Amino acid sequence: MALLEATPRTKQQRKAADTVIAALAARYGNRLVTSQAVREQHGNTTTWIDNQPPDAVVFPQSTQEVQDIVRLAAAERVPVIAFGTGTSLEGQVNAPRGGICLDFRDMNRVLAVHAEDLDCVVEPGITRKQLNEYLRDKGVFFPIDPGADASLGGMAATRCSGTNAVRYGTMKDNVLALKAVLANGEVMATARRAKKSAAGYDLTRLLVGSEGTLGIITELTLRLAGIPEAIASGICPFPSVEAACNATILTIQSGIPVARIELLDAQQVRACNRYSNLTLPETAMLFVEFHGSDAGVAEQSERFGDIARELGGGPFDWATKAEDRTRLWQARHDAYWAVKQLRPGAAALATDVCVPISRLAECVTETQRDVEAAHLLAPVLGHVGDGNFHLSLMVDLADDDEVSRAKAFLERLVDRALAMDGTCTGEHGVGQGKMKYLLAEHGAPALAAMRAIKQALDPLDILNPGKIVAI
Amino acid sequence: MALLEATPRTKQQRKAADTVIAALAARYGNRLVTSQAVREQHGNTTTWIDNQPPDAVVFPQSTQEVQDIVRLAAAERVPVIAFGTGTSLEGQVNAPRGGICLDFRDMNRVLAVHAEDLDCVVEPGITRKQLNEYLRDKGVFFPIDPGADASLGGMAATRCSGTNAVRYGTMKDNVLALKAVLANGEVMATARRAKKSAAGYDLTRLLVGSEGTLGIITELTLRLAGIPEAIASGICPFPSVEAACNATILTIQSGIPVARIELLDAQQVRACNRYSNLTLPETAMLFVEFHGSDAGVAEQSERFGDIARELGGGPFDWATKAEDRTRLWQARHDAYWAVKQLRPGAAALATDVCVPISRLAECVTETQRDVEAAHLLAPVLGHVGDGNFHLSLMVDLADDDEVSRAKAFLERLVDRALAMDGTCTGEHGVGQGKMKYLLAEHGAPALAAMRAIKQALDPLDILNPGKIVAI
Repeated sequence: MALLEATPRTKQQRKAADTVIAALAARYGNRLVTSQAVREQHGNTTTWIDNQPPDAVVFPQSTQEVQDIVRLAAAERVPVIAFGTGTSLEGQVNAPRGGICLDFRDMNRVLAVHAEDLDCVVEPGITRKQLNEYLRDKGVFFPIDPGADASLGGMAATRCSGTNAVRYGTMKDNVLALKAVLANGEVMATARRAKKSAAGYDLTRLLVGSEGTLGIITELTLRLAGIPEAIASGICPFPSVEAACNATILTIQSGIPVARIELLDAQQVRACNRYSNLTLPETAMLFVEFHGSDAGVAEQSERFGDIARELGGGPFDWATKAEDRTRLWQARHDAYWAVKQLRPGAAALATDVCVPISRLAECVTETQRDVEAAHLLAPVLGHVGDGNFHLSLMVDLADDDEVSRAKAFLERLVDRALAMDGTCTGEHGVGQGKMKYLLAEHGAPALAAMRAIKQALDPLDILNPGKIVAI
Repeated sequence: MALLEATPRTKQQRKAADTVIAALAARYGNRLVTSQAVREQHGNTTTWIDNQPPDAVVFPQSTQEVQDIVRLAAAERVPVIAFGTGTSLEGQVNAPRGGICLDFRDMNRVLAVHAEDLDCVVEPGITRKQLNEYLRDKGVFFPIDPGADASLGGMAATRCSGTNAVRYGTMKDNVLALKAVLANGEVMATARRAKKSAAGYDLTRLLVGSEGTLGIITELTLRLAGIPEAIASGICPFPSVEAACNATILTIQSGIPVARIELLDAQQVRACNRYSNLTLPETAMLFVEFHGSDAGVAEQSERFGDIARELGGGPFDWATKAEDRTRLWQARHDAYWAVKQLRPGAAALATDVCVPISRLAECVTETQRDVEAAHLLAPVLGHVGDGNFHLSLMVDLADDDEVSRAKAFLERLVDRALAMDGTCTGEHGVGQGKMKYLLAEHGAPALAAMRAIKQALDPLDILNPGKIVAI
């Protein structure tokens, strides 16, 4: 099923791509791949957005090689698309106009760790698990966890966040500086390693979330966090989504520095029970985690328990031993697979919106009602500390009627979030899938400003064209 | 003494300004002021950078009026300069090419407080003290504290931070969304109230720190923090700047969520003792503050005390009662006045740099040696949790030799910070004073990108021209 059509290309454009591919093949040998299978793996593979493969995939090993590739492509006005692990959910890696995909698989080194400064410098291809494995004996870790074992370059490019953003922030807060190859082939360094700076426009934050449309990230300086002395995890049932959301609001308002606070709705819990043979009460639940000193996490857990009780929730079951914590959180970790098993054969289509936390209960409740009225299946999972929630729509793609109901539902979901002063995406990004919502969300002047910036930095429109804003 | 010359204007340019002033006078009556005294108050008044007054000052009362003023000015290519309280330190409010100053004095309302969402919406002219006064009975506060009672619009425009940025972040972390009037007179909304978003380029962060060169801020949505249940403050002497810096590094690495951690060097302590009749040991000292629960701040204080002792510091004197805390921190609060009294008649010229925290001790120590060798007087005050420190250069502006030694010293200070992977300014911003360092700090491609963005959003160069980047 196609939500988007690849832009038809002229003969000249195809010839230009061939010219670039020939030049790349001469320089990069078997690091330039044009097989159909590999090309398709480098288009969108995660959702119902069409797979639009690039014309070729190249595996650079240095910033200089990226410059070289971009310059060759720019000379022929051929698109270049950066690729990490391909786990993005809105078609960010698709090649609607063909072009060269730069797969950063081979650029995955840790270039420096400055434990005293709580930062490190990495290449974009390293994944978050690889990085944390590398850091393990250094007393520090990189806290952003989007679920998938994504690459740091991709995480920065999509302004990713995930479960513990409520405490540690999103990629915008955890990238100190970037190096990126610009459309003209030059390497731009956005900032230095100082923890803060007021020296000019914030190019770092401009690149974070730009999805490869303004520059191709070739190096990242990341903030690290000290590994907490103690971690406490727990789960807590609530009588309703509303009660769970209110407990979340109170927790945050009370200044309890919760590290993760995740909502599973009754349907999601049911799916987890079935998948993992659990006997959790099939009602809205919060999964929480606290980081701190031994005394600190105990105090945080107790205060959270008090808040939960006040709102009719509980019992709050918590633990600090690693195995006990894992057991408690198992349902959360299995959530994706549990949902997939709810309806074998159906596609699991993930989407997300984010609203001010005071509107979250209302937004989730209305959405649940909408799901039911539209005869759809879509368990809710929320990073509720941020007002962000996900739906896994289980859709039979062969059923045209269901597909059209699902599409109409997605429109209403975004409309609902926007009407509540929210955003069409808290963390999945725009890619191709959410471009159509940006005007309603931001208004014409902001969209024109984005377009002007894109045009200023990439006048030939070769950097991941057809994503975020069309110029 | 002039560091910068106002750009000489053509007859036509002066006529254009007169045309705009006449139109504004007709519309705004006595809210348009052209007296010499008021104009001079709206140029730079804080440092040795020349006072370059605007041609007129207008006091808008609404976003629509700002649009109107910008459109009138744009039609004649006359500069417009936003003005909050005029406390910036690098000439940000100067009018080197004349133009219209928009003083936001009358736009200082709180438009909404969403305590559940920990945010509020304000007009740019409100000062941080006014805002916190307004919020006092709502259980929330706005944490950024640059010392001066600056306006929120100005604080956002300069990406300001201050003493408790180490815990609460800088303005980049505490502005959720902005409305700004663009060079074409349109109002751009950069984002919505959702706590996070991945919906397109981060226009909020692009505007924060742009010093009025990309848009004129007319509304801000700010993150608030819950008022902590308990606050503990303390002071701790150390045998050396190095020991104090190492204690800071360890504190942060240990995950102690210190709210403020301020270094005063021996000379600064001496000035404070003299000014406030105190008997503090005249050595490097850390002033710290902890926010949290009663048990939490006690634990944090004790752990900090342990770290200090380990590094040869102490005794660590701390308190939780408001009067005791104020007494302990008195020296820090009086620091600016104490320095001024060190050398009556001399100008106190504030500057700041910021380096990775691991280089801070080295940077401060070398700087102290440099101050001494150059026969200058410049006590050090640092927001050391961020690797950021300030110098108050006490300079006799009538002494040409001293002035030239001071200028040469400032160049070396920035060179030293850059050589340590730091920035020429952690929080004061670029304005006119630090434009010359941006190339060395960021390199040509980043500077070209900044210029391209400025040109894309303000092609006529009417928004605070001659600041950050020249186009």
